[in-house]
Amino acid sequence: MERLHRKERVAAIFKILSDKPNTVISLGHFSEIFGAARSTLSEDITIVKKVVEMLQCGKIETIPGAAGGVRYIPGMSKDFEIEFIKGVCEKINDPSRVMPGGFLYINDIIYSPEIVNKVGVILANKFISKEADYVITVETKGIPIAMAVATALNVPLVIVRRNGEVTEGSTVSINYVTGSSKTIQTMSLSKRSIKPKSKCIFIDDFIKAGGTAVGIIDLLKEFDCTVEGVGFLIEAQPEGKKVLNEYVSLISLEEINGEEGVLNIIPSEKFKEK
Amino acid sequence: MERLHRKERVAAIFKILSDKPNTVISLGHFSEIFGAARSTLSEDITIVKKVVEMLQCGKIETIPGAAGGVRYIPGMSKDFEIEFIKGVCEKINDPSRVMPGGFLYINDIIYSPEIVNKVGVILANKFISKEADYVITVETKGIPIAMAVATALNVPLVIVRRNGEVTEGSTVSINYVTGSSKTIQTMSLSKRSIKPKSKCIFIDDFIKAGGTAVGIIDLLKEFDCTVEGVGFLIEAQPEGKKVLNEYVSLISLEEINGEEGVLNIIPSEKFKEK
Repeated sequence: MERLHRKERVAAIFKILSDKPNTVISLGHFSEIFGAARSTLSEDITIVKKVVEMLQCGKIETIPGAAGGVRYIPGMSKDFEIEFIKGVCEKINDPSRVMPGGFLYINDIIYSPEIVNKVGVILANKFISKEADYVITVETKGIPIAMAVATALNVPLVIVRRNGEVTEGSTVSINYVTGSSKTIQTMSLSKRSIKPKSKCIFIDDFIKAGGTAVGIIDLLKEFDCTVEGVGFLIEAQPEGKKVLNEYVSLISLEEINGEEGVLNIIPSEKFKEK
Repeated sequence: MERLHRKERVAAIFKILSDKPNTVISLGHFSEIFGAARSTLSEDITIVKKVVEMLQCGKIETIPGAAGGVRYIPGMSKDFEIEFIKGVCEKINDPSRVMPGGFLYINDIIYSPEIVNKVGVILANKFISKEADYVITVETKGIPIAMAVATALNVPLVIVRRNGEVTEGSTVSINYVTGSSKTIQTMSLSKRSIKPKSKCIFIDDFIKAGGTAVGIIDLLKEFDCTVEGVGFLIEAQPEGKKVLNEYVSLISLEEINGEEGVLNIIPSEKFKEK
């Protein structure tokens, strides 16, 4: 590659780091690409760090030593998180979204790349320290959000099926009891899809009592794997007891009543303006 | 924001453009953020353009006029596309992936953010000129790839369900005949999920005869919408006739035979080394 000026090299380094978030890239790698000395590259990285601080778009970590290098962890400022989540709540707070049966229509929200990719970054940040091997979700609606979290953590996604699929080879299936309606459901995971002893983060669009999350924890026990963190876009209060208590949610559904056209959605406790 | 040096501003501008791909951002917007004159910003954009060319990671378009600005279209060089697709073929070309019934196990491929996001960029590039309003897919396995295409095009994703879902309000359902096995299946789409007169790109992981794609085209007619492009990761040759002929695929499944452990996966015609 043609020798670059610093102003070009800094932008190029930042792009390369952004395209592989949460992944350590060695200075040697950059040195090969740009034909620049490590000392020069260290100065470049310091500039990238400054840019990330100014844009408040996460952080740059420098890992010293032989296996060291640099990694970019996407993120946003607390203020921006709060502003963004408030904006999503405003979008959802529209009584015409209440469907027959008291369900909430949010497909346009949970399938919008602009929204979902920011939700992914916010949730991923809560679980960075868990050093997860996989993000796991259950079909269908949580997949885009889970994919966004997997992208930000740069780990593979695992999708649990509601019904065993013939095309995925041997599967392990479990029955579980939904927390709210107390009905029995089945979920299945292909035996090939996850390595034993793996650490997983479970991500879904919605939690009420948490029966599905408990089902996932049980299913992963069959694979000798653990759930190290659980995150949702929206939480609602169940009529009975919650069966899962430790999780992160961005938004809280406080009240929904289709007949009276009542809907109240607010940021979850962690993301409220103080 | 504190006044930046050019070397910082260029990196910041590139990051902002990358986070909103395929979207025109006005110089006025950058001017507000950085407090820099338009002429200065134009020079910055020229440097970003040079960086994009050197990294071969797409292109920067400048749109003149009052409604003008700059947009970043993610992409990669033809050589890198070919190299990447060859690599994916090598990963898949492993007879242990052939499942009972002659199915191919590719979950690890189609749920890997690193692979899927590159597939998304390659497919999105083939459809940029269509100016699509939505990317559409059908649950389940194609969702991550479709989400990656939607992210690169920066348009909402629409997910067609195999069964009507109570939580999505009124739905339109159609029956369609699968192209290969000639069985009748149902698919449903919530009436709220797509605006009439919209242009859509259909994305899925796999095509054989193309019955599902034809089903999507029919379903969208009910919404007064059109399919302007169709893309897949893998295509296979059906025993009978294909019912869909115009599409883009990256990879071709030439031969699969579980009993004899035969598997042959190669890049599709468009992505072969010349």
